[in-house]
Amino acid sequence: MDMIVVMKANATADDVQRVVERIGELGLVPHLSKGEFRTIVGAIGQKTPPTLEQLRQLPAVDEVLAITQPYKLASREFHEADTILDIKGIRVGGPHVNVIAGPCAIEGRDMLFEIARAVKDAGASMLRGGAFKPRTSPYAFTGMGREGLRLLQEVGRELSMPTITEVTDPRDVPLVYDHADIFQIGARNMQNFNLLLEVGRTDKPVFIKRGLAASINELLMSAEYVLSQGNHRVMVCERGLRTFADETRFTLDVSAVPVIQERSHLPVFVDPSHAAGKRDLVPALALAAIAAGAAGIIVEVHSCPDRALCDGPQAVLPANFARMMQQLRQIAEIVGHRVTLWNRDDAPPARPTTTGWMS
Amino acid sequence: MDMIVVMKANATADDVQRVVERIGELGLVPHLSKGEFRTIVGAIGQKTPPTLEQLRQLPAVDEVLAITQPYKLASREFHEADTILDIKGIRVGGPHVNVIAGPCAIEGRDMLFEIARAVKDAGASMLRGGAFKPRTSPYAFTGMGREGLRLLQEVGRELSMPTITEVTDPRDVPLVYDHADIFQIGARNMQNFNLLLEVGRTDKPVFIKRGLAASINELLMSAEYVLSQGNHRVMVCERGLRTFADETRFTLDVSAVPVIQERSHLPVFVDPSHAAGKRDLVPALALAAIAAGAAGIIVEVHSCPDRALCDGPQAVLPANFARMMQQLRQIAEIVGHRVTLWNRDDAPPARPTTTGWMS
Amino acid sequence: MDMIVVMKANATADDVQRVVERIGELGLVPHLSKGEFRTIVGAIGQKTPPTLEQLRQLPAVDEVLAITQPYKLASREFHEADTILDIKGIRVGGPHVNVIAGPCAIEGRDMLFEIARAVKDAGASMLRGGAFKPRTSPYAFTGMGREGLRLLQEVGRELSMPTITEVTDPRDVPLVYDHADIFQIGARNMQNFNLLLEVGRTDKPVFIKRGLAASINELLMSAEYVLSQGNHRVMVCERGLRTFADETRFTLDVSAVPVIQERSHLPVFVDPSHAAGKRDLVPALALAAIAAGAAGIIVEVHSCPDRALCDGPQAVLPANFARMMQQLRQIAEIVGHRVTLWNRDDAPPARPTTTGWMS
Amino acid sequence: MDMIVVMKANATADDVQRVVERIGELGLVPHLSKGEFRTIVGAIGQKTPPTLEQLRQLPAVDEVLAITQPYKLASREFHEADTILDIKGIRVGGPHVNVIAGPCAIEGRDMLFEIARAVKDAGASMLRGGAFKPRTSPYAFTGMGREGLRLLQEVGRELSMPTITEVTDPRDVPLVYDHADIFQIGARNMQNFNLLLEVGRTDKPVFIKRGLAASINELLMSAEYVLSQGNHRVMVCERGLRTFADETRFTLDVSAVPVIQERSHLPVFVDPSHAAGKRDLVPALALAAIAAGAAGIIVEVHSCPDRALCDGPQAVLPANFARMMQQLRQIAEIVGHRVTLWNRDDAPPARPTTTGWMS
Repeated sequence: MDMIVVMKANATADDVQRVVERIGELGLVPHLSKGEFRTIVGAIGQKTPPTLEQLRQLPAVDEVLAITQPYKLASREFHEADTILDIKGIRVGGPHVNVIAGPCAIEGRDMLFEIARAVKDAGASMLRGGAFKPRTSPYAFTGMGREGLRLLQEVGRELSMPTITEVTDPRDVPLVYDHADIFQIGARNMQNFNLLLEVGRTDKPVFIKRGLAASINELLMSAEYVLSQGNHRVMVCERGLRTFADETRFTLDVSAVPVIQERSHLPVFVDPSHAAGKRDLVPALALAAIAAGAAGIIVEVHSCPDRALCDGPQAVLPANFARMMQQLRQIAEIVGHRVTLWNRDDAPPARPTTTGWMS
Repeated sequence: MDMIVVMKANATADDVQRVVERIGELGLVPHLSKGEFRTIVGAIGQKTPPTLEQLRQLPAVDEVLAITQPYKLASREFHEADTILDIKGIRVGGPHVNVIAGPCAIEGRDMLFEIARAVKDAGASMLRGGAFKPRTSPYAFTGMGREGLRLLQEVGRELSMPTITEVTDPRDVPLVYDHADIFQIGARNMQNFNLLLEVGRTDKPVFIKRGLAASINELLMSAEYVLSQGNHRVMVCERGLRTFADETRFTLDVSAVPVIQERSHLPVFVDPSHAAGKRDLVPALALAAIAAGAAGIIVEVHSCPDRALCDGPQAVLPANFARMMQQLRQIAEIVGHRVTLWNRDDAPPARPTTTGWMS
Repeated sequence: MDMIVVMKANATADDVQRVVERIGELGLVPHLSKGEFRTIVGAIGQKTPPTLEQLRQLPAVDEVLAITQPYKLASREFHEADTILDIKGIRVGGPHVNVIAGPCAIEGRDMLFEIARAVKDAGASMLRGGAFKPRTSPYAFTGMGREGLRLLQEVGRELSMPTITEVTDPRDVPLVYDHADIFQIGARNMQNFNLLLEVGRTDKPVFIKRGLAASINELLMSAEYVLSQGNHRVMVCERGLRTFADETRFTLDVSAVPVIQERSHLPVFVDPSHAAGKRDLVPALALAAIAAGAAGIIVEVHSCPDRALCDGPQAVLPANFARMMQQLRQIAEIVGHRVTLWNRDDAPPARPTTTGWMS
Repeated sequence: MDMIVVMKANATADDVQRVVERIGELGLVPHLSKGEFRTIVGAIGQKTPPTLEQLRQLPAVDEVLAITQPYKLASREFHEADTILDIKGIRVGGPHVNVIAGPCAIEGRDMLFEIARAVKDAGASMLRGGAFKPRTSPYAFTGMGREGLRLLQEVGRELSMPTITEVTDPRDVPLVYDHADIFQIGARNMQNFNLLLEVGRTDKPVFIKRGLAASINELLMSAEYVLSQGNHRVMVCERGLRTFADETRFTLDVSAVPVIQERSHLPVFVDPSHAAGKRDLVPALALAAIAAGAAGIIVEVHSCPDRALCDGPQAVLPANFARMMQQLRQIAEIVGHRVTLWNRDDAPPARPTTTGWMS
């Protein structure tokens, strides 16, 4: 049994500090979460019921609650409102819908720039591109590595788009940290716990894809690994399950979106590209995801998919991507959300006010 | 290898008759499909390549094509345009989106009428209600049977709503035929082939739910069983797969919608209720289904779900159903579809023009 | 909450009768089970705790227990010892291992006799052969029907082998009853509840295959359908699950054997042929099943599988079957079981003493 | 398309060297495999058909074959006979059955020694024990780390048992190399490609567990990662799939044993403990695995499972393990295998003759 301590609205920094210290003295690990109006402190660890009482007595403590889920910091019990991240001025989560697009793998500067320009014009707010590609075969193209990261950084800066790229090895965390804005943890590495701990010790956002046979609780436990290290900037992403149904590459579990939202405050994305495995199916799945309330999608776009070095068959053409974006924006509005757009000028759509628990 | 014979636009009834007879002489089984502008004749059976040539020479034959799929009459190769059914004046399929709603099981006249009235007011075009309920336990409530069918017929007539109910035994086909407008074949009976053959020999529409571990091709083969008997009024329905993911009752395979549409001309529905198993998740899945292009949904609604004799936890309350219908209608329009509505007056929304291959 | 009433060892027929009547008066349904030393009476239905007390007071009642499983008559709580069936002098269940073998479909008298002779010589105790074949495609061979049943009966009699064949339609139950010794309920019909009720009203043994996506409890609930009608001669059979693993036709769940044995007293068979889908894999799966403690296997054998009209690729050749039987018999002994053999003379291996709860 | 070059029996070291060099000149990567009588050289890489001819002409080349599988060095096409490893004098693979046993996690010296002594006496040939435990929760016990490795080494030496332990991070490879005899790659890390590459660069045997949703080809591709780095001492292990069936922790895919043996020459183990998740089911699964032809099992044993810090419910008690070993040895013999035993004296059962392709 773990706990969260809800501070009163008028609690001072000293009050909070006292609670944090007391939690430490009780042999628990404190986790601080400062919201706009309230501060909340998590207390993780084995404890006896009296502990609850001891914390409840401290000045400016409004409430102390036990958390019953196996994940603590990831749970709605710990943080009731949606987490809204601020990534280089772009708000992610809550009502904000973001589309992350780009090629599967970075293959060269010109191709990357061309695709990035196209997806930004169509309404994507962030740029994806793989530099380290985990591949089933040891004889397949595994990405451009360090040089790919450099190109991603260059193009991202030029177009003012935050970038996301996969990291697959704990030893690569510093290198990826220096070049990209968001760490992507791929489905195969969802339970690479040392990797999760490494990115958890940084201050850059982490985007965790659900393993192809992972339960939702296991996904949230992987998020908890990152959160437990003090990095609260976590997004999770449904990307399809491995089931008997082989008409698609994976079976997109669209119900994961409302289920995760019920259990957790973290933004939930959907990857329609890997689930579908065929570009013709991508728009239907993307629209379904947004209709189900997702915080966004991550989608593979390629201007010449026949020549793509990786996953060509599932990459959408820029023109089709643009068409899909039109419908996607309208559907987002019907469910009370709003797509973050860059395409009029290069400034973010509005000055972000930090309403989440982490800036 | 089977074939379809495409007649010229100006083919006369005699021309068609000659083709049908020739197919019979060649030892094949003919299947006639009259469209608005063209007539198409399927020819099913083992045959040698010369057969193709023999049919090609007949007067008024435009083209003869081989069908490569295991399903023939259900395939897009056989019938390229979407099938649009006319069910008591309501058009189903193509751009028409229909919402079928009602209680899981019929429990009594008042309850059924109350729910039917509510869902019709909110925009449902057809009424569902189970009289024969297949249940895992031999000791559970298995429906009101014949009396339930009578009530369904009565309420359907009173509200001018076409009705759909499950038939589970070939011996019940005549009884259900006399009382309901659409035969529902449940997921457990998707491969009850004798049952499929029986309903295939009637002229009432058949609504086939995908088995919880059935592939899409198996679903289309079950449709083919009905089609092969001459009943061309078939709809299919995705209702969730059994996977390891146990956060929902079943894993809704939303990608089945575009996949089936690619392979078949039959209308594709989605059942968000059985997939979710929990009412809170139903709206998100319903909206996702319509965004993905489904021809409609079938959803369980109950005004007092705590007392429902069957599947209470997944029944949506009428007020929530009405709210969901608002968003559903808007999303249908964004993807180029239109929800069939009854709620202004009791006449169908427009005089149906038979554009499908079956009236 | 349902109950079982355990009678004292010296209870008379009158004592038992009194309990049965009292159960009826209390509004419950009685189920009688006479063992060698004890009689047990099940009482199924909604009841209040006092009922337990009322039954406990009756003369010659030793104990009254509540059954907590959803299945009652199928549970170990209801019947602690293994059920041992006597099928035409052959004992099935407990330590007795039986091998059921034969072609997938009956294709003609000579072929059937040849295969039956071969499998009997190699040690099979019962003969399988399909007359009604459920097929995914409406255009595939669906069995010889009534004529097939006649051939099966004839060959079974000639070789003194009990026969088993699939029944797929409640309307065929009387016909199959007249020709075969055991009703097989196929995986697709495991939840064809009306079919289960029909065979439950006969006095012939029923062999229920697990559906390809059925849980073990659902399988036992299907057994319960048969048991609830008074037919206590039920066997169940694991035949592979549909999973993502497509190297085999289905994934054989060998752990179902010990799991079912823990929960139920019914004999558990395994079908390695349908699980494997390829004959080369059948022996390994058959031996694994017996090593795991199965009551037997049902296996497809064909002397000319390339010409088989159904499932040829998974049929084992008679010579390979004989080789496999040698190892199978030795493994059965290592785990404390004994294979029923016919191959020395045509009398059953020993005079069956009814030690089970049903003769 | 890749190739293998089969050298003539009388080929000299120089002949082989010439082939290796020529392969390099042609832009391919050579892989050397010296058997008792023949040497085989793999040539991996994109190539044109003429290459085949060019290699065929070299002196002492007997045959050049194309390999059609995605895995090359792991395939039966590359190496037809079973690989037999020699691990500290114990032969693994081919007819040799080995039982690896021990606690899930190393918890202390006394406990580890007690369990190791017990399993060795009962017939286990190798000792397992986890020092780095990947756990779903960041708050769970994750093993004793370096100190655990030290204890494992000490106990293994004292009892002359080769040891196996999991490595989860590429950075830990040197540390684990110094303390254990076999690297275990856990199911969660089956596609941690950088980890596979690291252990592939060592000369110690690697034991790869199949991921819970990995296909058999993916498992063999992971083996290929290790093989491709020059480490040919690889074993693979089936440990259960994640399916809808929740009666067991995972669904043991026993058919993986014959399927892998058909495709690959590598020894195939089975882990009945993780599949079952409950100790009562372990013996049935262990016997099934050996009956299906597995090269051995890896099983968790604990003398006090209620107090185990990890996976207690699935640990078998030493007495039950000993009983199971009796049956296991007999079943191995029936299928033509032989269990490696240590329990009479502390010398390996026979002087190992290297019949495999790697010593």
